[in-house]
Amino acid sequence: MGLNVTQKLIKDHLLEGEMKPGSEIGLKIDQTLTQDATGTMVMLELEAMGVDRAKTEASAQYVDHNLIQEDSKNPDDHLFLQSAAKRFGLYYSRPGNGVSHPVHMQRLARPGKTLLGSDSHTCANGCMGMLAMGAGGIDVAMAIAGEPFYVKMPKVWGVKVTGKLPNWVSAKDVILEMLRRHGVKAAANHVFEYYGPGIENLSAMDRHVIANMGAELGATGTVFPSDEETKRFMRQEQREDEWIELTADKDATYDIEEEIDLSKLEPMIAKPTSPGNVVKVSEVEGEPIYQAYVGSSANPGYRDFAIASKIVEGRKVNENVSFDINPTSRQMLLDLSKEGHIANFIQAGGRLHQAGCNGCIGMGQAPATGRNSLRTTPRNFPGRSGTKEDRVFLVSPETAAASALTGEITDPRSLDFDYPKVDEPKKPTVDLDLLQTPVSHDEAQQVELVKGPNIASIPKMEELPNDMELPILLKMGNDISTDEILAGGARVLPYRSNLPEISKFSFEIVDETYYDRAMDIRAQGGHAIVGGQNYGQGSSREHAALAPRYLGLRVAIVQDFARIHWQNLANFGVLPLTFVNEEDWEELEQGDVLQFNELREKLAKSNQFEVTVKDKGKNIKVEHALSPRQLEFILMGGLINWVKDRLEK
Amino acid sequence: MGLNVTQKLIKDHLLEGEMKPGSEIGLKIDQTLTQDATGTMVMLELEAMGVDRAKTEASAQYVDHNLIQEDSKNPDDHLFLQSAAKRFGLYYSRPGNGVSHPVHMQRLARPGKTLLGSDSHTCANGCMGMLAMGAGGIDVAMAIAGEPFYVKMPKVWGVKVTGKLPNWVSAKDVILEMLRRHGVKAAANHVFEYYGPGIENLSAMDRHVIANMGAELGATGTVFPSDEETKRFMRQEQREDEWIELTADKDATYDIEEEIDLSKLEPMIAKPTSPGNVVKVSEVEGEPIYQAYVGSSANPGYRDFAIASKIVEGRKVNENVSFDINPTSRQMLLDLSKEGHIANFIQAGGRLHQAGCNGCIGMGQAPATGRNSLRTTPRNFPGRSGTKEDRVFLVSPETAAASALTGEITDPRSLDFDYPKVDEPKKPTVDLDLLQTPVSHDEAQQVELVKGPNIASIPKMEELPNDMELPILLKMGNDISTDEILAGGARVLPYRSNLPEISKFSFEIVDETYYDRAMDIRAQGGHAIVGGQNYGQGSSREHAALAPRYLGLRVAIVQDFARIHWQNLANFGVLPLTFVNEEDWEELEQGDVLQFNELREKLAKSNQFEVTVKDKGKNIKVEHALSPRQLEFILMGGLINWVKDRLEK
Repeated sequence: MGLNVTQKLIKDHLLEGEMKPGSEIGLKIDQTLTQDATGTMVMLELEAMGVDRAKTEASAQYVDHNLIQEDSKNPDDHLFLQSAAKRFGLYYSRPGNGVSHPVHMQRLARPGKTLLGSDSHTCANGCMGMLAMGAGGIDVAMAIAGEPFYVKMPKVWGVKVTGKLPNWVSAKDVILEMLRRHGVKAAANHVFEYYGPGIENLSAMDRHVIANMGAELGATGTVFPSDEETKRFMRQEQREDEWIELTADKDATYDIEEEIDLSKLEPMIAKPTSPGNVVKVSEVEGEPIYQAYVGSSANPGYRDFAIASKIVEGRKVNENVSFDINPTSRQMLLDLSKEGHIANFIQAGGRLHQAGCNGCIGMGQAPATGRNSLRTTPRNFPGRSGTKEDRVFLVSPETAAASALTGEITDPRSLDFDYPKVDEPKKPTVDLDLLQTPVSHDEAQQVELVKGPNIASIPKMEELPNDMELPILLKMGNDISTDEILAGGARVLPYRSNLPEISKFSFEIVDETYYDRAMDIRAQGGHAIVGGQNYGQGSSREHAALAPRYLGLRVAIVQDFARIHWQNLANFGVLPLTFVNEEDWEELEQGDVLQFNELREKLAKSNQFEVTVKDKGKNIKVEHALSPRQLEFILMGGLINWVKDRLEK
Repeated sequence: MGLNVTQKLIKDHLLEGEMKPGSEIGLKIDQTLTQDATGTMVMLELEAMGVDRAKTEASAQYVDHNLIQEDSKNPDDHLFLQSAAKRFGLYYSRPGNGVSHPVHMQRLARPGKTLLGSDSHTCANGCMGMLAMGAGGIDVAMAIAGEPFYVKMPKVWGVKVTGKLPNWVSAKDVILEMLRRHGVKAAANHVFEYYGPGIENLSAMDRHVIANMGAELGATGTVFPSDEETKRFMRQEQREDEWIELTADKDATYDIEEEIDLSKLEPMIAKPTSPGNVVKVSEVEGEPIYQAYVGSSANPGYRDFAIASKIVEGRKVNENVSFDINPTSRQMLLDLSKEGHIANFIQAGGRLHQAGCNGCIGMGQAPATGRNSLRTTPRNFPGRSGTKEDRVFLVSPETAAASALTGEITDPRSLDFDYPKVDEPKKPTVDLDLLQTPVSHDEAQQVELVKGPNIASIPKMEELPNDMELPILLKMGNDISTDEILAGGARVLPYRSNLPEISKFSFEIVDETYYDRAMDIRAQGGHAIVGGQNYGQGSSREHAALAPRYLGLRVAIVQDFARIHWQNLANFGVLPLTFVNEEDWEELEQGDVLQFNELREKLAKSNQFEVTVKDKGKNIKVEHALSPRQLEFILMGGLINWVKDRLEK
């Protein structure tokens, strides 16, 4: 039976497991991508693991998130990342160079390769015939260290594309239509694969737009074939020699099949506050807007800016609209400037910001209270813009620019002029200095990590003892989220590179005495916590496992775990157990001391065993769902120790 | 006897007082300038005063400070200011349009006029043959309402300019040389007046550089004549019809005379942490730098950017340098873009930011810990950049660009290429839409002030009662600063437009129970405070008077006052008294109740009177130094009531 592109990519990189949807597979990772918000911890993990040099074909560290330097914390992080990139043999992209995903696409993406990134929109590079996936920081650190990436074998959701986009309709409307059809959850454990006669009408950057927001559909990834358009793009980037063709076999099949006819599409809009809340623009026309925002990895192409520029050229944006222009990269900013588009934006009344993620991740450009903001960004979750109870709409550049002119939500087809024609620049800039290339191994070994006062190495984590007495420091109920375990936000996140400091915020929403109580007994062997249903739901942030672990958390016993937090606990060496009998939750109280004896033997023997509640003469039956691999590294104190050990051997 | 330009300007605007240095004069104000950090309170004051429409010839509200929109507070302020500008008949400059001083110079400055601004660098427009002065917010509100501005008649410090600047040396080096000669204090109550054969070699924007940093010399203002160069500049801005000649009489004299020979100057640098800490660049060459920063009102000219662009053209900045480009205005950004300078910056590795004050006032672009930052900005006070214990150096654009290339402090004369030639653009842009023009009176009356949830009107202030019993809520020692009365910083300042909220921070550094205790007795007539020497030193911020006043402060009795805070207390209706016998400070304690009887009669009779300490049977002799005008408005409850009353009549 023939293979589709996704299956070919997986087959080529399969190190462990079987290509049976739902079963765990281990994949070889060729490239990695880290950004600055998640990358500092990845670099500290590499340091703690004792990694000498990246084992991938190409790994790149981008600085695109934390560009607002209100004090020394962000610039200190940038210097740290620059030094770490040198030390570990990574490419480094400086602040102001642009958004990771399009820059990676321009400089490093290669058809036929795998890419793992500590950013949920890493999937964007699937536009280049790659298998590109987002993951947690330590997963990426592992990949940099040369370890496989473990993931469930996905089903492949084929999307046959036909037709050609009408005027005033563009790639963003394609992915918004997909979100209208399927919402934000339907595609879990699927890879979208686009194919068919219509894709030759989508440029590489158009495909980036569609692949990028595969994350919003909940997909594991989005894959496009590598074809003549991919070749054209790579030629333009002076990397044609790295191009290979990669298309589905003629007799390839898909687990799900659907079709999208580009010629039938019209301008679409995702209303507040979900990317899945999609309707036609014409259905919400006329609402006044405060902001029209162009940029982000969801509309990163030269075309996306040029079309907006052409729409406002020689005109003025409405006096009540903040028209925010966020160029994707230094390279593109140069072309936009040379071709007169920057001048168009400025003349029309635009606010030009430095190249980067900026407002897309709430780093500035928050809208005024209660006002509508139209953005070409990928997400409009509540409050993500920085403004509480914001009203963010997701649109194409055409819709954003048209609405900037009128001051209200506007279907661009209703403008009284013809759809402007946009050509690629005749001589597009290729900025080969955009990424600082890895230094030689010899030079790398001389590099000291540059740590500002707010950057602290990850302390050594002890292995799991065979016998422990652990007091229960917290007993919690159902649905405890990672936000309650370790809050996000501007108060806490500046300490993302400083485990001792960020740990002080652990569980403070649940019980603000936790930190002090945990520190009191940390040296005596640590503690346990008890929880109810759906423990650890919400954000995937690793710090929610790492910070309590740093404070001495060794065992968590709950009724059941949210998947990602469960994995994060295991990664950092916390034993995640569930009650065999859920009602035993009633039996345990804060202050009880749990006795674990001959743990290694017990874990080796069975996935169920008994824990003694000291002074109560009671035993509680617990179990775990860990793989042998996970068990192995938990016993060693976590993934960091496990990798360190392997590298030392 | 002939008059110099300063004297002519004063004579033309003299409404009260005598032109005798040191004595108070009242001046007619033709134009005002407010920016967003101070302007929100000015607009709330206009509202509270009941001002219908600005009585000045031109008043402009700029948004250039708070451009980082991390949440809804700043954008809400922007919308409020836009609505207030409409309501009160002001010009309005939108976020992204640029820095107030150069935009005002381009669009509104007129030789022979007076300008008052709620920004300390308002003096920059003295470059246009104006008398331009910075002042507190309520002074500017009063000027908008048509009231005179009261100031001490200054002495005039004549600076005779000869010669022509050598290559690699520019206007910034002139003012840095002045700071090297005189430091930051010598010029109090002086206006600098530049004249002589050398000034024809300084462009209008060069003069702006020099006038702007007159603030750093401590001067009341800086004045240049209006000459052919002024005319050329106004022609370029399509306002030649507004030009008049204004030069000193042949037999004019100056209170102080000095000379500066431009041809003898070389590149200068102000070292951390004072603008007065100036040496030659060659004396500190070779120190590694983290940042080179171009922009701000201290180097706002097209030339200032173009020369930096030409220096880096076709080259790359050092990989360790953050090269931050902060265009002055939308209009200039357009010219820089059209003439290829933006492309030069981007290609060389620059980070391009939106037009505005930005890092100059600590709004982003903070340097990394312990690293050197070279800036073309006017100030390098400790921590102003946002980074604690920062190391900011003030330099010319030439020195900033040269150092960006080498990665270390570099005398630009040591570069191995010729001084690039910079021409003004052949067709400079004139953006007449840069300022939204005042709407008609009819239209203005329909405008509602747009107040976000964090913007609160100033509550009505009661007049000073004739008889009061005021408990002493705080007794303080010497040198209490306005930072202790009401802190600045990121925690407090976001509430600058919300008096009830910002009041909660009053005196919290001195005694955090103050707020609650003041609120408890606010409705019963308020309270008094007692202080020692130099009460209210430091920042001029009005909120330090307004917030305690809002909480019921009616009388402050201290040993002596810092001048500006004394004035602010009076402005907001707090009676500022000093002990006739300083040792009486010992007699008063927190909790004592002060009895004021027949206050109006007593104040009318003498500047000394007695206050009774209830339950102690003691009298304390106090005095005041208020002018009849000040007394009048204190009795009415403050300037706002006084103006309101006059406008109603």
